[in-house]
Amino acid sequence: MKCLILAAGKGSRLRPRAESKPLLPLLGMPLIERVIREARRAGADDFVVVTGHAADAVEAFLADLARRLDVPIATVRNPEWADTENGRSLLAAEGLLREPFLLLMADHLFEADLLRDLLRAPLPPAGLRLAVDGQRHNPLVDPDDVTRVRRDGARITAIGKGLEPFDGYDTGIFHCTPALFDALREAARHGDTTLSGAVQRLARDGHAQAVEVSGRFWCDVDDPAALARAENALLRRLRGKTRDGPVARWLNRPLSIRLSRRLVNTNITPNAISLASFGLSLLATGLFLVGHYAALAAGGLLAQLASVIDGCDGEVARLKYLGSDYGGWLDAVLDRYADAFLLGGLGAYAWQNGGGTLALVLAFLAITGSFLVSYTADKYDGLMRERGGARFRIGRDVRVFLIFLGALLNQALAVLILIAVLMNAETLRRLYVCRAG
Amino acid sequence: MKCLILAAGKGSRLRPRAESKPLLPLLGMPLIERVIREARRAGADDFVVVTGHAADAVEAFLADLARRLDVPIATVRNPEWADTENGRSLLAAEGLLREPFLLLMADHLFEADLLRDLLRAPLPPAGLRLAVDGQRHNPLVDPDDVTRVRRDGARITAIGKGLEPFDGYDTGIFHCTPALFDALREAARHGDTTLSGAVQRLARDGHAQAVEVSGRFWCDVDDPAALARAENALLRRLRGKTRDGPVARWLNRPLSIRLSRRLVNTNITPNAISLASFGLSLLATGLFLVGHYAALAAGGLLAQLASVIDGCDGEVARLKYLGSDYGGWLDAVLDRYADAFLLGGLGAYAWQNGGGTLALVLAFLAITGSFLVSYTADKYDGLMRERGGARFRIGRDVRVFLIFLGALLNQALAVLILIAVLMNAETLRRLYVCRAG
Repeated sequence: MKCLILAAGKGSRLRPRAESKPLLPLLGMPLIERVIREARRAGADDFVVVTGHAADAVEAFLADLARRLDVPIATVRNPEWADTENGRSLLAAEGLLREPFLLLMADHLFEADLLRDLLRAPLPPAGLRLAVDGQRHNPLVDPDDVTRVRRDGARITAIGKGLEPFDGYDTGIFHCTPALFDALREAARHGDTTLSGAVQRLARDGHAQAVEVSGRFWCDVDDPAALARAENALLRRLRGKTRDGPVARWLNRPLSIRLSRRLVNTNITPNAISLASFGLSLLATGLFLVGHYAALAAGGLLAQLASVIDGCDGEVARLKYLGSDYGGWLDAVLDRYADAFLLGGLGAYAWQNGGGTLALVLAFLAITGSFLVSYTADKYDGLMRERGGARFRIGRDVRVFLIFLGALLNQALAVLILIAVLMNAETLRRLYVCRAG
Repeated sequence: MKCLILAAGKGSRLRPRAESKPLLPLLGMPLIERVIREARRAGADDFVVVTGHAADAVEAFLADLARRLDVPIATVRNPEWADTENGRSLLAAEGLLREPFLLLMADHLFEADLLRDLLRAPLPPAGLRLAVDGQRHNPLVDPDDVTRVRRDGARITAIGKGLEPFDGYDTGIFHCTPALFDALREAARHGDTTLSGAVQRLARDGHAQAVEVSGRFWCDVDDPAALARAENALLRRLRGKTRDGPVARWLNRPLSIRLSRRLVNTNITPNAISLASFGLSLLATGLFLVGHYAALAAGGLLAQLASVIDGCDGEVARLKYLGSDYGGWLDAVLDRYADAFLLGGLGAYAWQNGGGTLALVLAFLAITGSFLVSYTADKYDGLMRERGGARFRIGRDVRVFLIFLGALLNQALAVLILIAVLMNAETLRRLYVCRAG
């Protein structure tokens, strides 16, 4: 699937922040890189970018990006970018586009599922299909600036800024046949050199259709306010998709997202974050082994901090498209070691402080039970998903939070009892529940 | 896929062992039940069985089996079974078979893959296809009793006992069109009421084809010697398919197969065997905790015995078609608990016998490392399979064997060191190897 991206404009309202709007970093990654990476996730594998303003810088960046992603990215310059509307930029790329193609804007972010929705619908012959957002009160849309659309069923009947009445917003995301180029030329002959003008023409002849994409994430990054809105929306989306337990949801995740917002602007990799979190857990264990309350409490705080940071690896991976099976696996393996060390350390503290053999037995049962809860998680989660039932889950977030509380309150033995009972009971419950199926 | 099974004959050479040959138990399961269960694995889902000798008993058994397996099994009696050849039994079922069908013998065992090979080849129109074994020295075949086949490419040119020259054996496993019934009638008019006579007639007209199935398991159970050969072959097949480590392969598996051969004749379920093995491991742990060498050695022996018995659950499950995802999972969860208890017990012994804090630390590391090796096994195995490389594997068989040796030699501390180092090193190696991919 070929994909054309318009990146010629000046973006004057965001000018001071970057040499060129396509290169404007959003959560540590230039806008146009986000657009290209997300389009790839939906199946685009051959890119054409029209440059204009700051063309040298944009083209140099794209050449490097093509090498990093191992994906073809051709560039075409529109020498008249400064004096014409965006229709002219489109025509500059005509020679490279003989087949249907995706048309995107370098400053319009979106989620891959939106493209997938668009591509699922059949392309009207000799026309185009536009992703239209019918959600009138979408908080990510600037109502004064957005292009409006009027529809009759799937057919677009009118398009333009300030259109009244209207029933949807133009997302700037199209699936086109090359017939668009004829429409652009025809519109230009009548004095309208905008893309909207060409779409209006196709609409008049019944060749422009819409796909409803309300509820999908998309965002036009036009000014500093829109940039902030887009960043917040991307960060908010980190909450929705994870299967967080209660402590993660209400305590760890809000903190880790704040941290990740800063981490994306560094070169720190998700695996380095996993290792750092693991290192903090080891440090906490060392403090537990000291045997005094002050060290215990400090260790508990460190353990909880490690648990917060442990959320950042996945967040940074998602925000910077660095997710990998290996990364997730490394994180899980380090978490198992961290669990064992923290509980072993807590057991050693309790043993030294009058817990005796009981502390050792409890630490053994807490470690074993915690392992088994992790060991059975995949099978249990899979089964619960199949049955569609609500999933009761005691996870690592709760475990570490209990260790943190126990350390603060100097109740190592009590916490070991609690974790030993909870984790082994949960394992037995899973064995029972899965059997019943 | 419909499936016709001939079960009318007397099986006089096996008479003393069961009321009727189809009901003859082989490793705890009647022959005809094995045939029906294995055919189901290859996709057959509607059975017709022709009965004759001891028809009441066979039909009562099949009615019960149909209920147990929740699969339709119709029966048709051949009243002339005593005085005619098997072609007559086939004709008795004609009214129920209007479409192509599988034709099997109640006393011919086979593996599902053989049926899959047969069903993959296209069925000749108005003819049949026979699974033919071209392996002249198949030790499971009785050369004096088997029906021989001569082929020209895939075409069968002649079939019969004592045929010379010949190039394959008739497995008694067919994929047929209803044209077979006409051929049976025609052969009968010429005085031949055997199935082979009808196949000979179809072969003459070019309507009988063969599928080569050498290397696949099949076996005609005709007399006590063949019965013993078949049992041994099924037991031998338990070795081939499992991914055993060295101790399992050379010590545990040979012993567990001998035990499973007896267990299949009882009602003991695979899950009960898993629980029994787990119980023995707990008992071994209890003996470790006693703190004297004699108890330690006895515990070591029990632990190794538990490891042997732990092989039987899977074996009995395969031999009696009782395998389930849940069973495999329960076994894995109990193994993790058993590992933790045995190593914890060994640590306690070493602690009591002068090992001090070092024994506790080593037990902690051994438990953690062993758990992590199990935790990382799926991912690592999957990756190694993908790469097609040889898989180095330190599994539970080696772990328990080391515990057994350490207990016998009163070297608890040394074994804890060995397991702690081996298991954690193996985990780190896996993290490294998978990363490199």
